[in-house]
Amino acid sequence: MNLTGKMLIGGQAVAGMREASHGIDPASGLALEPAYAGADAAQLAQACALAWAAFDVYRETTPAQRAQLLETIAEEIEALGDALIERAMQETGLPRARLQGERARTCGQLRSFARTVLAGEWLDVRVDPAQPARQPLPRADLRQRQIPLGPVAVFGASNFPLAFSVAGGDTASALAAGCPVIVKAHSAHPGSSELAGQAIVRALARCELPAGVFALLFGSGRAVGQGLVGDPRIKAVGFTGSRAGGLALCRAAQNRPEPIPVYAEMSSTNPVFLLPAALQARGDALAQGFVGSLTLGAGQFCTNPGLLIAVQGPALERFVARAADLLQQSAAQTMLTPGIWAAYQAGADSLSTHAATVACGLPASGPNQCQALLLRVSAAEYQANPALQAEVFGAAALIVQCRDEAECLQLAEALEGQLTATLQLEDGDIALARSLLPVLERKAGRILVNGWPTGVEVCDAMVHGGPFPATSDVRSTSVGTAAIQRFLRPVCYQDLPDVLLPPALQHGNPLALRRLVDGMREA
Amino acid sequence: MNLTGKMLIGGQAVAGMREASHGIDPASGLALEPAYAGADAAQLAQACALAWAAFDVYRETTPAQRAQLLETIAEEIEALGDALIERAMQETGLPRARLQGERARTCGQLRSFARTVLAGEWLDVRVDPAQPARQPLPRADLRQRQIPLGPVAVFGASNFPLAFSVAGGDTASALAAGCPVIVKAHSAHPGSSELAGQAIVRALARCELPAGVFALLFGSGRAVGQGLVGDPRIKAVGFTGSRAGGLALCRAAQNRPEPIPVYAEMSSTNPVFLLPAALQARGDALAQGFVGSLTLGAGQFCTNPGLLIAVQGPALERFVARAADLLQQSAAQTMLTPGIWAAYQAGADSLSTHAATVACGLPASGPNQCQALLLRVSAAEYQANPALQAEVFGAAALIVQCRDEAECLQLAEALEGQLTATLQLEDGDIALARSLLPVLERKAGRILVNGWPTGVEVCDAMVHGGPFPATSDVRSTSVGTAAIQRFLRPVCYQDLPDVLLPPALQHGNPLALRRLVDGMREA
Repeated sequence: MNLTGKMLIGGQAVAGMREASHGIDPASGLALEPAYAGADAAQLAQACALAWAAFDVYRETTPAQRAQLLETIAEEIEALGDALIERAMQETGLPRARLQGERARTCGQLRSFARTVLAGEWLDVRVDPAQPARQPLPRADLRQRQIPLGPVAVFGASNFPLAFSVAGGDTASALAAGCPVIVKAHSAHPGSSELAGQAIVRALARCELPAGVFALLFGSGRAVGQGLVGDPRIKAVGFTGSRAGGLALCRAAQNRPEPIPVYAEMSSTNPVFLLPAALQARGDALAQGFVGSLTLGAGQFCTNPGLLIAVQGPALERFVARAADLLQQSAAQTMLTPGIWAAYQAGADSLSTHAATVACGLPASGPNQCQALLLRVSAAEYQANPALQAEVFGAAALIVQCRDEAECLQLAEALEGQLTATLQLEDGDIALARSLLPVLERKAGRILVNGWPTGVEVCDAMVHGGPFPATSDVRSTSVGTAAIQRFLRPVCYQDLPDVLLPPALQHGNPLALRRLVDGMREA
Repeated sequence: MNLTGKMLIGGQAVAGMREASHGIDPASGLALEPAYAGADAAQLAQACALAWAAFDVYRETTPAQRAQLLETIAEEIEALGDALIERAMQETGLPRARLQGERARTCGQLRSFARTVLAGEWLDVRVDPAQPARQPLPRADLRQRQIPLGPVAVFGASNFPLAFSVAGGDTASALAAGCPVIVKAHSAHPGSSELAGQAIVRALARCELPAGVFALLFGSGRAVGQGLVGDPRIKAVGFTGSRAGGLALCRAAQNRPEPIPVYAEMSSTNPVFLLPAALQARGDALAQGFVGSLTLGAGQFCTNPGLLIAVQGPALERFVARAADLLQQSAAQTMLTPGIWAAYQAGADSLSTHAATVACGLPASGPNQCQALLLRVSAAEYQANPALQAEVFGAAALIVQCRDEAECLQLAEALEGQLTATLQLEDGDIALARSLLPVLERKAGRILVNGWPTGVEVCDAMVHGGPFPATSDVRSTSVGTAAIQRFLRPVCYQDLPDVLLPPALQHGNPLALRRLVDGMREA
């Protein structure tokens, strides 16, 4: 364990010049050493200058080189061993098994992007060869590839200290695309961030790539975060966090002389529709599945099921009674930070003011522990009251009771954009599910049947995204290999001699890509 | 010829309830009949409601149905015959042959998107089958496809009354993606717009598709344009026009409760680098090519070469003398509208204040005719003066003279984002070209060697886009088949039974798509 309290700029440990802060052990409330001082404007500018200088070199590395970097980062993270897990446990209150799983996910994600880079489909090579004899006008030789946008600012998330943080999905996909990355560490886990950052620095050195490809900064969102988004050398932003935080970054990015894309994953209540036949057939199992998903990791997941929608009646009452039973036995759990705990308390209080409490979990037995909470309202009350529609980050959920199926459909139409929407159904529900599906496709990035939304697979088909306010850019996913597309743009090359063409576009196709040539996909 | 002066809403001709305006024949300055009254708020809302109601139906049409629609629109436009060409000539001052070519391009573009829709790659189908036995956790069945964003507002461009207007590239790509389209016609060519709109309405009827899939509105940018962008049922915007106009739409789209993507193609000076060996070897031919490209269509192209960059010396002086000769013989040409003519005069005056005039074309012999203009400045003067860097829409160009190759490179770095950048080179210029290429890739959407940027091929490999301010979204192209991607978003389906999956994702692969299954592309 080698924590210095320093930032990483140009491959060097650099002490921040602004005010320092400590990670806090939420289980004890005590500050953890060392202190982490924030970047001042000059340090931020230096990281941007180095990223900018590294960009033209890094973006023309071969797919093999870039895959090697991603795999080497995974190796270096694994080489950190228990030191990383133990520091992350201290900083987050999350249990060992969860963090070991998250580390496996983080390294698997890096290796998955390595395979994606090597497969080369992200280059989307299109070739329309010259037709010098075409009438009335000849056609030039036209070739298109995707190139990276430029240096990317990544904001670490509070709830995944590894998988959505320094070496997480945003960093992995940006590096895969060919973009240098500057991470602003989340203040909740500076030590874990430093360790992961050191792993990336070592991997860059081992791969003999420019140190400017990566930097890790500490500091406040206002100073360092806004400073990064405002720097002209930053060309895209990846963020996972609150709606207010994401919207502030979007505004800053839009107000630049050159606006840039912001991929902010912000807020979602993840509606689960308990359809009538399913509720009738397996209300007990649904209650068990629901309470398990709601309370997993103290409910601190973007895809936590915060909204249950069902038609009123005896089957719903049986479900509610069973869920209440289970919830009342659920232990209080330590939340990630005192700030997140306080926000949960405020959110739970607000919900309790506007909705009837069904059940509470067991009370807290230590600092920063949250008590699970289940409430219910009518569909009419829910729609009339924006306070009920806001995400409460943590293990709180609202049951919305509809008069009939028509009101379920109408409620679906009234929902804001979501990361996920779930249908619990049996054969008898297929007709209703068919009516709901087109609505849910317009509302969510991922639609589940007979599952629970927590648990986001890293794979080609995953979408962790969705319409506003779930994210700031409905065209994107922040999990899964399609996330690389966020950091690419097309460039067309007209009549360039082979000697000037990049390898992906050369006539001999040295990268052996399956190009789209004259409208036909190569075998 | 069947011009009614009416809008098209729900397949019906509807008289606008706001103030009326006329197209103007720029060659005579006279108003053309009929008058076109603008949409009021209720009419605009009606078009949006119909588009919204049609969306869920239209977006689930089969690729074959959608391809048939696009081909039928092309047929119906061809069936308009000379009436369309003659009306467009009157409204734009453009010559017959140009408009015939533009019609062929428009219909070819529609048919090209029909082929793209049928090929199905735009669906980007990804399948990660369930792994129920996986340890430590099973994997669900995950399937991803692209779905359309929703109704799209398209703003017709002044300079392509057919190819970038009612049935132009934005409309064709949005319809191909599965989005209903509401076009705000450009006030410069309402009659051509009405004819093209009627063709689309007839095609929808022939294909038995909902009339709400298309609407054509007249009216001002402030009332109808901002009204469309502000309507919650509009989910994306396509625009080709001025920087001020595009930025106003971007602001409106960002300030909605639910921000939406705006694809605005705005401004570009399209730098052409005359590299030393090329200038030495073929200065005369370059002068001819340049003056031809500059004055083509009165310079009214987004890709007009408004900026020439070269190292000072005798070869440049010979080029300048020859270009001046040719330019002085170039006839004045009628511009598209009195407003565009006035803006050109103002822009040319501004350039003349800040740069030395090299040559002017022949003077005007009728209303709204522009005189070509060539000026020169030093690289230092150019960089110091933002007034020299603004696009002047029309046949005006600036020669920027550099002290040496290093200053050429430095000037390239200082350029704003561009649609195109061109290198005129010979073998002796390859080293300099290699230095310039990475810079130009960061600055432009299309890079040409030994060509001229006017002339934008409609094909798979084309990029008509580029960094801000060339466009508002560097990740996109508005010409070529990749334009369809602007109007799509991914959705993931987890564990849906086959009976609920869309055909593109069903286990039997009824659309015979080449899916990405477990990371492998199907043959």
